[in-house]
Amino acid sequence: MDRFKTILNIASKQTNLGFGLVALLTAGGEQIFSSVAFKCPCNELNFLYGLVFLLVPALALLLLGYILSKKMWILFTGLWHNRAKLCYWKNLATTCTAFLQISSTALVAPSSWLAVALLNGNYYECAMTGTNLSVYNQYLCKDMNFELDCGRKLHMLPCDKRNEEVLRTLRSQSQILGWLVITFIMLSSLLIICLARCNSPISYQQLKFWRAYAQEESELMDLYTNKHAKDLAERNLKSFFNQMEPANITTPSNKDWEKIS
Amino acid sequence: MDRFKTILNIASKQTNLGFGLVALLTAGGEQIFSSVAFKCPCNELNFLYGLVFLLVPALALLLLGYILSKKMWILFTGLWHNRAKLCYWKNLATTCTAFLQISSTALVAPSSWLAVALLNGNYYECAMTGTNLSVYNQYLCKDMNFELDCGRKLHMLPCDKRNEEVLRTLRSQSQILGWLVITFIMLSSLLIICLARCNSPISYQQLKFWRAYAQEESELMDLYTNKHAKDLAERNLKSFFNQMEPANITTPSNKDWEKIS
Amino acid sequence: MDRFKTILNIASKQTNLGFGLVALLTAGGEQIFSSVAFKCPCNELNFLYGLVFLLVPALALLLLGYILSKKMWILFTGLWHNRAKLCYWKNLATTCTAFLQISSTALVAPSSWLAVALLNGNYYECAMTGTNLSVYNQYLCKDMNFELDCGRKLHMLPCDKRNEEVLRTLRSQSQILGWLVITFIMLSSLLIICLARCNSPISYQQLKFWRAYAQEESELMDLYTNKHAKDLAERNLKSFFNQMEPANITTPSNKDWEKIS
Repeated sequence: MDRFKTILNIASKQTNLGFGLVALLTAGGEQIFSSVAFKCPCNELNFLYGLVFLLVPALALLLLGYILSKKMWILFTGLWHNRAKLCYWKNLATTCTAFLQISSTALVAPSSWLAVALLNGNYYECAMTGTNLSVYNQYLCKDMNFELDCGRKLHMLPCDKRNEEVLRTLRSQSQILGWLVITFIMLSSLLIICLARCNSPISYQQLKFWRAYAQEESELMDLYTNKHAKDLAERNLKSFFNQMEPANITTPSNKDWEKIS
Repeated sequence: MDRFKTILNIASKQTNLGFGLVALLTAGGEQIFSSVAFKCPCNELNFLYGLVFLLVPALALLLLGYILSKKMWILFTGLWHNRAKLCYWKNLATTCTAFLQISSTALVAPSSWLAVALLNGNYYECAMTGTNLSVYNQYLCKDMNFELDCGRKLHMLPCDKRNEEVLRTLRSQSQILGWLVITFIMLSSLLIICLARCNSPISYQQLKFWRAYAQEESELMDLYTNKHAKDLAERNLKSFFNQMEPANITTPSNKDWEKIS
Repeated sequence: MDRFKTILNIASKQTNLGFGLVALLTAGGEQIFSSVAFKCPCNELNFLYGLVFLLVPALALLLLGYILSKKMWILFTGLWHNRAKLCYWKNLATTCTAFLQISSTALVAPSSWLAVALLNGNYYECAMTGTNLSVYNQYLCKDMNFELDCGRKLHMLPCDKRNEEVLRTLRSQSQILGWLVITFIMLSSLLIICLARCNSPISYQQLKFWRAYAQEESELMDLYTNKHAKDLAERNLKSFFNQMEPANITTPSNKDWEKIS
């Protein structure tokens, strides 16, 4: 239990390590899923089925990432009551930047799902044998021995393993796409981080300092919040059972809370 | 025992983790159930049987969630005697909100049952081979080699494994449906949380503080309640056996109890 | 031993957990019983035999639940001597409510037996092949290849495994019934708890307090009773062996005992 906690703690501090862990878990899950649950229907549903397996889990992971994101709720809680503040351009820009930051964190799992699924090739194979584009079908059929009725037999390819050539073609296309996706993710994240850092008004060491500060503050905040809540609860219940006036504990006002959030 | 308690404690504090645990347990239970107890009857009962296995356990889990919910009973206990209070619009709205919150917690297990059952595909397969809609049956039969008497032979499909095509089609439909259900759940929960948080009058840190307070209070309440009950019981029994007047212990009145609930 | 005691203690305090444990034990017992002791006779005794295995254990568990219930005997002990009291309407109503409460606790094990037995399907299968209703038999026989003498051969079905179709039908009927029973139990218990709680004159926290009080009182009562009995016995025996006047120990009178029960 303790060891598990330590790993979680390290992962949450070292964001890069945490991202790697999430990506690894997603990749493993995809592998298990692809071998257990995925069975190509081999008829006109092929395209829809392959696409659903390729994209919908990625969407679900993205939404899950938003739901589990702590920063997301720091940003949105009480947004409606402070909507007047959003009218200032600067606040709006800050909110947008924060949202982009959250999105980039939430995108780690979906993009690793996509990359692994494309490298694996099963889903793409199934989806592409179900396309109705005659041009693409002609292109695929030209390697096969039987020309007649290729469009109808294309559906059956993932199920009977006789026409290896077409499957090899599709699988290699899928893997090339997968590598392109990975390169695109790497490149865009490098660019985004680079831009964000170049435009920051402070130096690297100072940024590191502020990050460490923010984390320490958040941890201490949790600690103090819990302690304060405990004190308050104890006071109120004691006064309830002993039927006497409660002692006075100063609690920060609503305005103070807002300011530090 | 101690370790088990720690896990329960963490899960009950970290609602997200608790939800994940419940969903995982439900999924595991469904897997076991589907392989042990589920046997398609392969006759006109197919549709009813598949539907019962798909929906009734989800309903049972929902009801169980309501029964085990602590908040549910905090809300409903003594509701009849305080029904006058409900007439005010504000109280009614608060009660409805609380009920929605409880429902969303209770819906975790049923929806994960539904999603896993659809991804598994057994139940849907069995249910759909028993439909009496001739249009749907025609659609399924068109891939099969024997055209005559397809409607009657459709029942037998899940039992004899010769007609893989139809089963593959049904299984893929089921899995597509399953993914749609998962996406719908994620999307709606994200929207609901988002709306609830955006409209909250207080900021994130304060919300966290009040949550911590509520939990601490509930824990201390249990402690004090037990202690007070023990004192009272000891006093009463001592006075019974020694035949003397009981010492005075102040107990909060009914009204006070009501106020803090 | 100590760990076992802790578990028992927790289960008896947390009624929900206790119910779950009882239901789990019953389900496990049913599984063992069904695989070890149950063997369908495959003759005209089928119906009786299946029904006995389905219902009689449930009845036995219900009676056992009544016998082991502590509240039951608190309620009924001395009822005959106080029967005059029952004539008042209010007392009668209270007694009925208490009896309903005891019944609902005692019904946990039988209903889980019934549900698991129906989901298992063995008993129902055996009982239904032994029915003498010609309409029902005709319905079962229509899937079979041999029409002549179906009524007589129906008995043999659970023993020779050649006619899988009929057995599958029966098993699926049994499982559908089982799920209906589970849903009915869940729904009715939710409704009963809901009604009981809604009508309670006190709030949730106070209810919890009085429950804790009742338990503490019952535990302390046991303790004091044992101590008092020991003192009295020691005094009486000492005075007998030493041939001297017994010291005075005040013992509560019969009337006092009655009042606290």
